[in-house]
This record gives sequence, structure tokens and C-alpha cells, in this order.
Amino acid sequence: MTTFPKTDKTSITRLPKRGSYDQALVYSILDEALVCTIAFVQDGEPYQIPTGFCRIDNYLYIHGSVGSGYMRVLAEQQAKVCISVMHLDGLVLARSAFHHSVNYRSVVLFSHAEKVTESNELYQSLEVFTNKVQPGRWEDIRKPSDKEWKATMVLKFKIEEVSAKIRTGAPKDDDEDYNLPVWAGVVPLNTERKEPIPDPAMRIAIPLPNYLNHARS
Amino acid sequence: MTTFPKTDKTSITRLPKRGSYDQALVYSILDEALVCTIAFVQDGEPYQIPTGFCRIDNYLYIHGSVGSGYMRVLAEQQAKVCISVMHLDGLVLARSAFHHSVNYRSVVLFSHAEKVTESNELYQSLEVFTNKVQPGRWEDIRKPSDKEWKATMVLKFKIEEVSAKIRTGAPKDDDEDYNLPVWAGVVPLNTERKEPIPDPAMRIAIPLPNYLNHARS
Repeated sequence: MTTFPKTDKTSITRLPKRGSYDQALVYSILDEALVCTIAFVQDGEPYQIPTGFCRIDNYLYIHGSVGSGYMRVLAEQQAKVCISVMHLDGLVLARSAFHHSVNYRSVVLFSHAEKVTESNELYQSLEVFTNKVQPGRWEDIRKPSDKEWKATMVLKFKIEEVSAKIRTGAPKDDDEDYNLPVWAGVVPLNTERKEPIPDPAMRIAIPLPNYLNHARS
Repeated sequence: MTTFPKTDKTSITRLPKRGSYDQALVYSILDEALVCTIAFVQDGEPYQIPTGFCRIDNYLYIHGSVGSGYMRVLAEQQAKVCISVMHLDGLVLARSAFHHSVNYRSVVLFSHAEKVTESNELYQSLEVFTNKVQPGRWEDIRKPSDKEWKATMVLKFKIEEVSAKIRTGAPKDDDEDYNLPVWAGVVPLNTERKEPIPDPAMRIAIPLPNYLNHARS
């Protein structure tokens, strides 16, 4: 098992049994998430922004407009960031208020911004991002023009100082509370892709692509 | 319409037409979300953590263990925070890679931590939190003991410097791209509450409470 090194920042002090530094687990949590939040410091104060992302090997990639203020700040300062991702998998309904919880899988990553300038890497990052959002989509669509590339900034963040945290399974109550006449259990949560809605502006009748058929209810 | 004041931090420079300072909209986005991420600065570096929360009037509340390092840091320093919440409502599949997007509703809030010590407010915050996670639950369960209250810390954050950002509807492509033979539209996303799973450790047969019946598939 490949694991990430534990550092002062990524040591899990609260409920350490929920923590993990396993590379495969960290990657799986990142790859399933469509958005992350990126926190950074500006003039000594905290900022954060939710954004889409993808992972290629040991880097996390985001893209945005060259006109985006925060992208420019991150790029120019090679700013330190803290990035988090969370999947909420279930509501854990215990017999006591105190032991209510949620089942989740989260990743917290410390890194710094690096601007991507090499054209193959730019192209690959957008392809991987697009096919992550919707597998099969990249092959089907008009690729970016030179003008669009000039308007796009891509940043990457090395995945090295990182930890995952997960909770799974049933509630854990205090021994004496198991005799209470209270229903206990888990309400699983799931993100559902629903029936695709065609753009009313489509000029010609185009059937739903095969790669979207799985999304039909 | 009640609106929040626009400040340097909450002015939306990128795609400002997606921004809003409407109190009702901000509240609705917060109230629908089960988790937020809280970013703060420690030793000049960015940190963030995903956590559950609830809103009461014009404050956002979080709770955690008195043993939680980050809760203590926030409480002792009345630390400045940036809090974000995001709902991902749909994948926006345009004809061009460049115009791919997502439909979303997000809130970004700047505030600082205040420790809650008044017992009525503590109690109310946990009741509202529990019934937000699962409406009807608080009335059904064992309330916190004195010992459990001593182990619990509640922080609040005034909701004042805040903005919302939303995107809805169909893709917007460049004029000439509407003639491309590419399917375009939106794949709606939805968080589904699935059939509750009873705790295998239940000692007596307890029927599913009425307030959980809506969650059955």
C-alpha cells in the first residue's frame, strides 16, 4: 500500500481512527468528487472558493478565466492553499443526540499553486476534466480555439501533504441507551444524475448520445 | 427585499450577473445545505475543514468537541473565517468545451467565531441542528446529559458580509456553434435520501418513525 507521509498539518488529532494516508483511498475520494473548495490567504485573511477540478497522476488541476481575480492571485504568488473535498454518504441517527453523526469520506490537502503553461499538459487537463464531469463528452464536442485557450488559466497543485477521513456504518451509542425505545440507523444519501434535459435552442433533432443513456431514469 | 451590504470582499468581479445579496436567497441556500467548509488562517497559512452547521436568525452555528483543535483555535482567537456552501444542481453540457459549466447555488460568508455560552442558546442550536439533519428527530431522542454538554463546544458566526452566486438553465454557446451536430443540454443532479437502514444492534423491534417514511424508496 502506498501511503502519503504524515506531517504536522495532516496528523489527525480528533478521532484518528477515522484517518487514512492511503494513496488509493485519497485518489478515489478525489476522483469521485466534481467540486472541491480551495482556501487561501490574502492580506492575512482567509478566503475560499468552490470550484471544479480533476486529478492527473499526483496533481490536482483547476481551470478558470484569466480574468478571475483569485486565479491570478494564486498563480502570481504560487500561493499556499488548503483544498478539501467531502462526500456525504449518510445520516447517522443514534438514540442520543450526542452520538448523531454523518457517514462521509473527506480529503484535506495542503499544497501550493503552480501555473500550467505546457500546451500538452493544458490540453490533457481539460480533456480529463471534461470526461470526468461527463464520461465520453470530450470526443463529441468542439475543442477550444486559440482565442479560448488564451482566455483560460490552468493551475495545478501537487498531492503530497494530504489525509483522508471517513466514517461508515451504524450509530455507536452508549451501552445503556441501547435499551431506549428509539429507532436508530442510517439514512443513506446518494447523488443522483437525473434524466437529461435537451437545450430548447437545439436547431436540429439530435438523439441523446449513448454515453448519456445511463443517466436516464 | 432585504439585502446584505456589498463589501470589497463580497463584490463579485467574475460573472457579476450570477451574484446576489438577497437575504432570502442566502438563507435558503444555507438552510438546504447539511455541510459547509470553514477556512481560517493559522500561522499565516490557510486551513479548512468541512463540518455540519445550522442557521438561526442571522447566525450560522457549528458544534464540535471541546477536544477539537480547530474549534479551540477559532474560539480562543475569535478567528476570522471564510465559510462556503455549494449545491451542485446540474451538469451543463454545451456544444463547445469552453462553454461547459455547472448549475449551482453557492454562498461565501466572511465572519469571525464567537463562542456560545448561554445555555438556552446552546440547547436551541443543537435542537435546530438535529431537526435540520432529520426533521422530527430531536423530539424522539435522548437529550444531552450534563457531561455531554461539557464535552460540546458551540461556535456562532454572524451572517453579514456574505454573497450568493447561482447559475441555472441551459448552456450558452457561441452563435455559430448552434449549427454543430452535438447534443446539448443539462443533466440535473439531486441528492437523494434512500431507504433507511435499521441499526443491526437494535434490541427491540421498533417501527420506522413516521418522520422517516418520506425517505423510503
